[in-house]
Amino acid sequence: DRDRFILSAGHGSMLIYSLLHLAGYDLPMEELKNFRQWESRTPGHPENTHTKGVETTTGPLGQGIANAVGFALAERHLAAVFNTDEHTIVDHYTYVFASDGDLMEGVAYEACSLAGHWKLGKLIVYYDDNDVTIDGHTDLAFTEDVLKRFEAQGWHTQRIDGHDVDALVSATDAARAETDRPSIISCRTIIGYGVPDEEGTHSVHSDPLGEEKVRATKERLGIPLEPTFHVPAEVYDYMRAAGGTGADARQRWDGTWAAYAEAHPDKYALLSAALQHDLPAGWDAQLPAFEPGSKPLATRAASGKVIDALKQAVPTLVGGSGDLTPSNKTMASDDVDFQAFEARGEYFRFGVREHGMGAILNGLNLHGGLRGYGGTFLIFSDYMRPTIRLAALAKAPTLFVYTHDSVGLGEDGPTHQPIEQIASLRAVPHLNVYRPADANETVACWKQMVTDPMPSVIALSRQGLPVLEANPEGVARGAYVVSEAGNGDPAGIVLATGSEVHIALDAQKQLAEAGVHVRVVSMPCWELFDQQPEAYKDEVLPGSVTARVSIEAGASLGWHRWTGPQGVVIAVDRFGASAPYKTIYEHYGLTADAITDAMRSLVG
Amino acid sequence: DRDRFILSAGHGSMLIYSLLHLAGYDLPMEELKNFRQWESRTPGHPENTHTKGVETTTGPLGQGIANAVGFALAERHLAAVFNTDEHTIVDHYTYVFASDGDLMEGVAYEACSLAGHWKLGKLIVYYDDNDVTIDGHTDLAFTEDVLKRFEAQGWHTQRIDGHDVDALVSATDAARAETDRPSIISCRTIIGYGVPDEEGTHSVHSDPLGEEKVRATKERLGIPLEPTFHVPAEVYDYMRAAGGTGADARQRWDGTWAAYAEAHPDKYALLSAALQHDLPAGWDAQLPAFEPGSKPLATRAASGKVIDALKQAVPTLVGGSGDLTPSNKTMASDDVDFQAFEARGEYFRFGVREHGMGAILNGLNLHGGLRGYGGTFLIFSDYMRPTIRLAALAKAPTLFVYTHDSVGLGEDGPTHQPIEQIASLRAVPHLNVYRPADANETVACWKQMVTDPMPSVIALSRQGLPVLEANPEGVARGAYVVSEAGNGDPAGIVLATGSEVHIALDAQKQLAEAGVHVRVVSMPCWELFDQQPEAYKDEVLPGSVTARVSIEAGASLGWHRWTGPQGVVIAVDRFGASAPYKTIYEHYGLTADAITDAMRSLVG
Repeated sequence: DRDRFILSAGHGSMLIYSLLHLAGYDLPMEELKNFRQWESRTPGHPENTHTKGVETTTGPLGQGIANAVGFALAERHLAAVFNTDEHTIVDHYTYVFASDGDLMEGVAYEACSLAGHWKLGKLIVYYDDNDVTIDGHTDLAFTEDVLKRFEAQGWHTQRIDGHDVDALVSATDAARAETDRPSIISCRTIIGYGVPDEEGTHSVHSDPLGEEKVRATKERLGIPLEPTFHVPAEVYDYMRAAGGTGADARQRWDGTWAAYAEAHPDKYALLSAALQHDLPAGWDAQLPAFEPGSKPLATRAASGKVIDALKQAVPTLVGGSGDLTPSNKTMASDDVDFQAFEARGEYFRFGVREHGMGAILNGLNLHGGLRGYGGTFLIFSDYMRPTIRLAALAKAPTLFVYTHDSVGLGEDGPTHQPIEQIASLRAVPHLNVYRPADANETVACWKQMVTDPMPSVIALSRQGLPVLEANPEGVARGAYVVSEAGNGDPAGIVLATGSEVHIALDAQKQLAEAGVHVRVVSMPCWELFDQQPEAYKDEVLPGSVTARVSIEAGASLGWHRWTGPQGVVIAVDRFGASAPYKTIYEHYGLTADAITDAMRSLVG
Repeated sequence: DRDRFILSAGHGSMLIYSLLHLAGYDLPMEELKNFRQWESRTPGHPENTHTKGVETTTGPLGQGIANAVGFALAERHLAAVFNTDEHTIVDHYTYVFASDGDLMEGVAYEACSLAGHWKLGKLIVYYDDNDVTIDGHTDLAFTEDVLKRFEAQGWHTQRIDGHDVDALVSATDAARAETDRPSIISCRTIIGYGVPDEEGTHSVHSDPLGEEKVRATKERLGIPLEPTFHVPAEVYDYMRAAGGTGADARQRWDGTWAAYAEAHPDKYALLSAALQHDLPAGWDAQLPAFEPGSKPLATRAASGKVIDALKQAVPTLVGGSGDLTPSNKTMASDDVDFQAFEARGEYFRFGVREHGMGAILNGLNLHGGLRGYGGTFLIFSDYMRPTIRLAALAKAPTLFVYTHDSVGLGEDGPTHQPIEQIASLRAVPHLNVYRPADANETVACWKQMVTDPMPSVIALSRQGLPVLEANPEGVARGAYVVSEAGNGDPAGIVLATGSEVHIALDAQKQLAEAGVHVRVVSMPCWELFDQQPEAYKDEVLPGSVTARVSIEAGASLGWHRWTGPQGVVIAVDRFGASAPYKTIYEHYGLTADAITDAMRSLVG
């Protein structure tokens, strides 16, 4: 329940490092001296994975302030759900330090629009209004009326002299007193304060001062020239006392938490588990199972049923959609909208703000106590790329739910048909990308995702797909033999993911009729398969079987790794088209006939 | 010099199709009936490549309005540069139809902030304020004061009843009269106007009405029930007369253009060439050439010198940076900032608005008469992914200049170090991705880019790199032998791009000392190499040489295609680190020793 401080302008990372050091965090002076060096705890931009006291990874502008909306959202929702009349478990502020660059980024407008809409009164932003960016004076490119814009978005605004500490304290008090609106305090500051001849310049923004200017600045400000890293004892005393205040607050909270455990054991168990990234006992008992051969079902629809079952069992699983709820199937049947007047609601209406959604979810997931997911069309993962990467980098376990995952979406046409998105997401480090072939694989993928403390992406079909035998162990290994060659001795292997697995299975039948017996491998998650022991990989893809054909309704990039140079990659390396989806599949050669022809050419 | 109309809310594509049909464009009724079918000129969302009269490809929300800022920017700059006291060659409005969804997207805020800053008075937006999105009423997620926000961004605002045609006309007149600010007209409308029981609902937004409701609506509005596609003769007459007005305007313009040709032959030649995507004669005469072995130079610095030379010769080449001018080296020595008070300026200060920059450049490039480029760090290509894809889809020849292209950027750390970006961009259809190895390859890449009518991406190093022999023919073929095996009979091939080519060359020397003679292949553009005849590909990468090692400081995805399953891919499949770049290269195994070891293990 600590207050959170987020340095959205991450390039000023030494600000937070020096404050953490002074306040008594485990960040010794040696680390400050080791700034931006290999394996230091003081990297160029703040990383929550490296440094205690850093709440999120910032640097790409606009992300920190948008993450902060997620922190404040988590606080509001958790408070509404878990606090009782007697026990205030969750009750904190989220403070942000943001720069001109942060406020120019679209993601900041998106997230701040939602913060205003949701009336997140405990979110307080200090805007470092210093008139300077890398290119020069903000007059070059940023002349909007910032506070008026925040007013338009429903925020409480103030303007102060940022070098006036009393003004800062009073403005903060006023911001805290305003409970119905988030607050922004525009702090007029001078960049490079104290540096002779460089105050207010953009050179002081980016360039190291050098020894001479450091000396001149110290002289001007009356700071001893030696040692280079100098902290007066009274500064340590003052700041360590602040650390002590924090320790007292923590102790009080521990007491409340213990009392809460006794008074509300169920809620306590639920929140404890969530805080430790655990799931409550029996979380998967009600997950759906689908009868093989039953009515075809889109994997997005299967995903909707999984979400429904999961949210019944795991109330700390929350999420929403970027204004595509009916298409993404992200809303559970009992979900209530989270709104300013209903903070207990577990469903978020993000509006058409994919980037803001991603950044808010990353913040919410880093807050702790909740696991957040968000849905949109796969094509619009492009709008939120920076947040997917930052989720993986910052270990924010956001679940990215992407439907309409190929040209299979049909008539909406190429602007809405993902081609390169799956390949592009596979390139992101430390991110599992799932593309299930049917309803049962969808269930298994979700099980992987919610038990994994890292973020995941799942790509789901718009169109209905036949239901296969469940093979959760196969899905957990990333790839598996979904249908062995009829004679048990494959002449070739067809590899596929998602909706194309069924085309591969059709081709297998065609080929068998022609006496060519092939194996079909479903590869719902390349990354998991990559992590398997070589023995398992060889079992699924024996080196001796070089006649290989892959099929996926997306870019070919990466597939040659699995097919080898002799293999054939059936893919889509051009943009889609506006037409009924079966017509597109036919014209783009995503057919059983194409697989059959390719395989026959390979096996002779 | 026609006025431009951009349907930003592209999902209402039938609006523009029916208007084009009625106004006499080559879009017969058969095409309207063929809506959203294979190879029709009426795809689900408007595509400028499919339909005359459609100026840009819209559908992904926020893009159209941001493109429109680029159209208006092109108009303003071209008018300032080319109009004379006697001849008004460029003088038109840019009209936009935008929805709630458009205005929620961050890219719209970014672009509109610049439109206000630049005082683009001939940009006029009709905001279809209908209270409805896919999820339901806008109260769910979009409650900001839209007009106040536009005022804060320096816009002229009006509010009208969108069903009142007289009000629409007067508001348009007022918007046109306002020359110093862009205008937005909030048009309060009822979605599904005329549909019994469905007016103002979100179901009418997305769901087809069906025969019964179409009948009831027609009855209510007094429209004949048959034929289904019915246009009263007086509607055709009225609309075709509008087409005639356009024809007259065109004829007048042709006269002015002919007079201009006579009076200002140089300017005429320049603009004519630019309108046809041609370059003026002698455009490449002053391009730099670098002495092999001369002082190491970062490819971003070489790129800066190319831009300098190009802009001297090609004044219609314009561009800017997302607030990273000193780092991206995108500003030519004679460049002047484009500002409201200096519309002749050819350099754009986009601010920290990568997404807006991409969308504005796409619009500017589709306008005609200018070729636009924009720079940022490669990592921030993620912020503008949707615009890169749309450039390729809409054939908007934007030049995306990305510097700091790997972990080689050093101390700024993993938030700023691209890993998956190059692979991700290679997955985009119809997009050439260049990664030059040195200053001379950089020149050759730029020559490819500016002579190609499609968009391109170039990835440039932060760090200095040795200068190699120029081989523009090799670069034009996408990959070439940069250094043959010492004995002319390679035992193996090392493949590399960009800064890693030099590491490969070092390894070649090490290996030669050990008696292993390998070829080094530089692959500055995979896509161009892919288009070469098989004979050339076999010449560069003979099938008989299977001992292959690739090295690139980025994701491995895609490299196995070139190395084959026996080969070794040296890549970076994890996030970067904050440290001096040589330290990172060492720790990440991006070294000549690593190549040497891998190659020796392959050749035995």
